Amino acid sequence: MSEKMPIKALEQQLNEVISVKLKDQRIFRGHLTRCDMYMNLTLADAEELEDDETRAKYGQVLIRGNNILWIHIT
Amino acid sequence: MSEKMPIKALEQQLNEVISVKLKDQRIFRGHLTRCDMYMNLTLADAEELEDDETRAKYGQVLIRGNNILWIHIT
Amino acid sequence: MSEKMPIKALEQQLNEVISVKLKDQRIFRGHLTRCDMYMNLTLADAEELEDDETRAKYGQVLIRGNNILWIHIT
Amino acid sequence: MSEKMPIKALEQQLNEVISVKLKDQRIFRGHLTRCDMYMNLTLADAEELEDDETRAKYGQVLIRGNNILWIHIT
Amino acid sequence: MSEKMPIKALEQQLNEVISVKLKDQRIFRGHLTRCDMYMNLTLADAEELEDDETRAKYGQVLIRGNNILWIHIT
Amino acid sequence: MSEKMPIKALEQQLNEVISVKLKDQRIFRGHLTRCDMYMNLTLADAEELEDDETRAKYGQVLIRGNNILWIHIT
Amino acid sequence: MSEKMPIKALEQQLNEVISVKLKDQRIFRGHLTRCDMYMNLTLADAEELEDDETRAKYGQVLIRGNNILWIHIT
Repeated sequence: MSEKMPIKALEQQLNEVISVKLKDQRIFRGHLTRCDMYMNLTLADAEELEDDETRAKYGQVLIRGNNILWIHIT
Repeated sequence: MSEKMPIKALEQQLNEVISVKLKDQRIFRGHLTRCDMYMNLTLADAEELEDDETRAKYGQVLIRGNNILWIHIT
Repeated sequence: MSEKMPIKALEQQLNEVISVKLKDQRIFRGHLTRCDMYMNLTLADAEELEDDETRAKYGQVLIRGNNILWIHIT
Repeated sequence: MSEKMPIKALEQQLNEVISVKLKDQRIFRGHLTRCDMYMNLTLADAEELEDDETRAKYGQVLIRGNNILWIHIT
Repeated sequence: MSEKMPIKALEQQLNEVISVKLKDQRIFRGHLTRCDMYMNLTLADAEELEDDETRAKYGQVLIRGNNILWIHIT
Repeated sequence: MSEKMPIKALEQQLNEVISVKLKDQRIFRGHLTRCDMYMNLTLADAEELEDDETRAKYGQVLIRGNNILWIHIT
Repeated sequence: MSEKMPIKALEQQLNEVISVKLKDQRIFRGHLTRCDMYMNLTLADAEELEDDETRAKYGQVLIRGNNILWIHIT
């Protein structure tokens, strides 16, 4: 896969904090620990936000790529 | 499949308790007994939650991967 | 297909009673008579439930796998 | 395709009356005249039902498989 | 493709008048001028109907197959 | 690809004015400058319409094929 | 991939400002820094707009192609 692919911009953030917006409008923020080419990914020390308020915290959460709208990388 | 793939983080939880959020906003919590690369999975001694309340209990439930939003792993 | 695949847990229930939840929130309960790897399946002596009430009965019903949310196996 | 596949249960009903539930909650009832492995099918002398009332009649209707929820076979 | 396939019933209507129901509940009625195996099709001298009323007329319209619910063939 | 394919009817309109209806009910009208077999296409000097009123104008807009309901060709 | 493909019109805008409309009706505007053939793309110095008002700003955001309705290129 070329280094210029959009998904590579995600891989470069391994261990950094990212925010992931899902189709149900919730946002998950946490440390990116794994990702694949389908945008499936895992976040560590994650929190779930709704309307900018924290709703829950998770040690590790696996997010399914096909429900992602966008990812705030930096 | 590489050990670094997000789906591998799920496989490592076999027999552990996980929570699965579906597109219809219900959550299933139970012991992970099977999973595949499409995130299809089975839970044993599972309960179905809606707004943090238990709605039903199941000996064994098979969840279709393509309706999963996220999985709380640890 | 490995015996450890989630779909195998469904196959093991052939002739047993299962409950299938669809995306439109209806539940079908009946004897599993056929299933394939896409979760397409047939139920014999089936009833359709909405909010725990029986709405209709069917001798044999074919359910399309891609509209299934989950299957209560045991 | 194995004779045990769910779709085979549909093929066995060629020329018989079946009812097809679509994602928009309408039901089509008619004589099954053609079907394929994607559940695309044609009904002859078909009627369209909504809330158990006949809304329209058709000499021949082609139904797209990927919008089918379930099929009442017998 | 076998002559018994459902899509063949559509091809046999080339130049005839058909009605196409879309997922957004609109109906297009016109002369079938082209179709392919994905149910993509073109209608000539077409009208768009909503609740049985004509909303617009088109010289030629191309309809995307994956948004079709059903096609009234004859 | 056969000249009889529905998508060919679109290609024949290169540089002509077409109207494209999207799943969110908006219509884009403009000069067709590019298209591919997935119905991805670009319009030049385009306007976005909602309920027959112009909402915005664009020098060039790229429309994703899988959200198209239909295309008014002529 | 042919130079005439619609996706090529996007590639030609690398480093330029584009606006991307998503299925949830939000618009992202920013400098296009990466894109692929699935319309996955990254924007730098991006802002998120709802009803023409800025809701948030991002250093870099990765947008999933399959949730894009259209892209305002020029």
